Amino acid sequence: MIGAIPGVEVGAEFEDRTALREAGVHLPTQAGICGRAETGAESVVLNGGYPDDIDGGDTVLYTGAGGQNADGRHDRHQALTRTNLALVTSLRLGLPVRVIRGSRLGGPLAPTTGYRYDGLYRVASYWPQTGVDGFRIWRFRLERISASGVLYRAPADARRVAEPSLFEIGEPAPRVEATVSRVVRDTAVTREVKRLHRFRCQMCGARVETPSGPYAEAAHIRPLGRPHDGPDVLANVLCLCPTHHAAFDLYGVGVAEDGRLFGLPGELRTLAVHPLDAGCLAYRRELFDAAQAEAARRAA
Amino acid sequence: MIGAIPGVEVGAEFEDRTALREAGVHLPTQAGICGRAETGAESVVLNGGYPDDIDGGDTVLYTGAGGQNADGRHDRHQALTRTNLALVTSLRLGLPVRVIRGSRLGGPLAPTTGYRYDGLYRVASYWPQTGVDGFRIWRFRLERISASGVLYRAPADARRVAEPSLFEIGEPAPRVEATVSRVVRDTAVTREVKRLHRFRCQMCGARVETPSGPYAEAAHIRPLGRPHDGPDVLANVLCLCPTHHAAFDLYGVGVAEDGRLFGLPGELRTLAVHPLDAGCLAYRRELFDAAQAEAARRAA
Repeated sequence: MIGAIPGVEVGAEFEDRTALREAGVHLPTQAGICGRAETGAESVVLNGGYPDDIDGGDTVLYTGAGGQNADGRHDRHQALTRTNLALVTSLRLGLPVRVIRGSRLGGPLAPTTGYRYDGLYRVASYWPQTGVDGFRIWRFRLERISASGVLYRAPADARRVAEPSLFEIGEPAPRVEATVSRVVRDTAVTREVKRLHRFRCQMCGARVETPSGPYAEAAHIRPLGRPHDGPDVLANVLCLCPTHHAAFDLYGVGVAEDGRLFGLPGELRTLAVHPLDAGCLAYRRELFDAAQAEAARRAA
Repeated sequence: MIGAIPGVEVGAEFEDRTALREAGVHLPTQAGICGRAETGAESVVLNGGYPDDIDGGDTVLYTGAGGQNADGRHDRHQALTRTNLALVTSLRLGLPVRVIRGSRLGGPLAPTTGYRYDGLYRVASYWPQTGVDGFRIWRFRLERISASGVLYRAPADARRVAEPSLFEIGEPAPRVEATVSRVVRDTAVTREVKRLHRFRCQMCGARVETPSGPYAEAAHIRPLGRPHDGPDVLANVLCLCPTHHAAFDLYGVGVAEDGRLFGLPGELRTLAVHPLDAGCLAYRRELFDAAQAEAARRAA
């Protein structure tokens, strides 16, 4: 299962790997990564197994699996397959990954015994690197998802100790403070709309190809959350390329109730299995029209 | 000035608007928004002036300026100009906005007296709405930027009171927990590269047009932060459309040291005033080549 496990709070502690498995938090009792290349990673355990791992609390540099001999030393290159590729899939599809810290991790962020579920992280980037043993490893930057309601905060002291190692490089303060985000939501619905359209943009037909598979974004027509309260259903979601998603969010492109596009030639590419909700389209069109009308008024 | 004011910590308190002005945190002594349409908003004050404002701590629904009579009631439509348009510019350019809370805001998040600087927020979206007085207002969703080092956390009690009003709609837990982000960094350098290229993608030449101006993203060639430690300088940054930024981050497109593109026809669009660093290009190309080689290996 991808995402939070119902009933398991951030900060929940587990005696051992069997308890983690029984709770559904992390299924394998040995492997550090749970997941499949096709569907993405479900969870990772940070337990000090890799000399290259760096744990900064909100940001974790995590090392992929494999390439090790029985002593835990790397004696060959890691491949970007299986669970390592699963983490790339999580990045490509925008899926959250559960992070668990174990006591063997050491340092101020580790639990004193057993394991602790530390919430959902996103995979922010991945890259190859030559590890301390001289072989190629694959690394993943995991960033805690800052949903205020579920944010896990390490104790202030722990953070003070742990973070400088990650953030005191270059121009830390301005860089960190200036990080802004374009939010892409992951729900069962947004995953399904990408699958249905085979990751093709419903506005331009383009598909972003990457070495780990195609990339697309899901855009809600009537936005989620207050005050819009749009429903998280397929009929309220479009599969878009990043460019048309940004343009849609900024009212640069729009869709009429009959599928005609505004700001782009032609019509929305639709599928019989993916009809759109006329009410949601009308709601969005009002926002689009108002933003465009203000631009026309300013230009006049 | 856009962004954090050096020397002013998140949580800093100010006696009155004059003190805020003298510290450079919020310059106007009356207006709630400081900023210009061309360059973006610098800061906003939440002080209970608008009956439609909703303050959820990490997420603020903020109402634009204007349309009010001397009693503070809306008696005409708000225009999307001046400081209201400045907030749209901040959204379009990905600029952070300082948020200040005043005691008249009321509720658990307000300071008991005076004003408090509560850190940097991003403008996540904007839309028109009919306000409680029956006239159109422009609204802005501000979201706290979750840079761990500068995150301001309201007391646990305050959050419990304040947040349900914002988050208890629809399917709160899965929606909030599943929010993931594509990170776009804002620095003086990323702003400059967009200006130089007039918001045109250096890979495809496309420019995202919106009713408030063009949109583009800046991509670091050699990534910032550990372990890459790429420099935040113009020679290490590209101006890209959102689609090619995503493809670049996922190693779907790349650039050779001579400007030839991989994964796309043609060459990078360059400017004499914006030469690129060969070392940074070579660093990135190694990452790209390794990711592509793994894909070829899996396919073989």
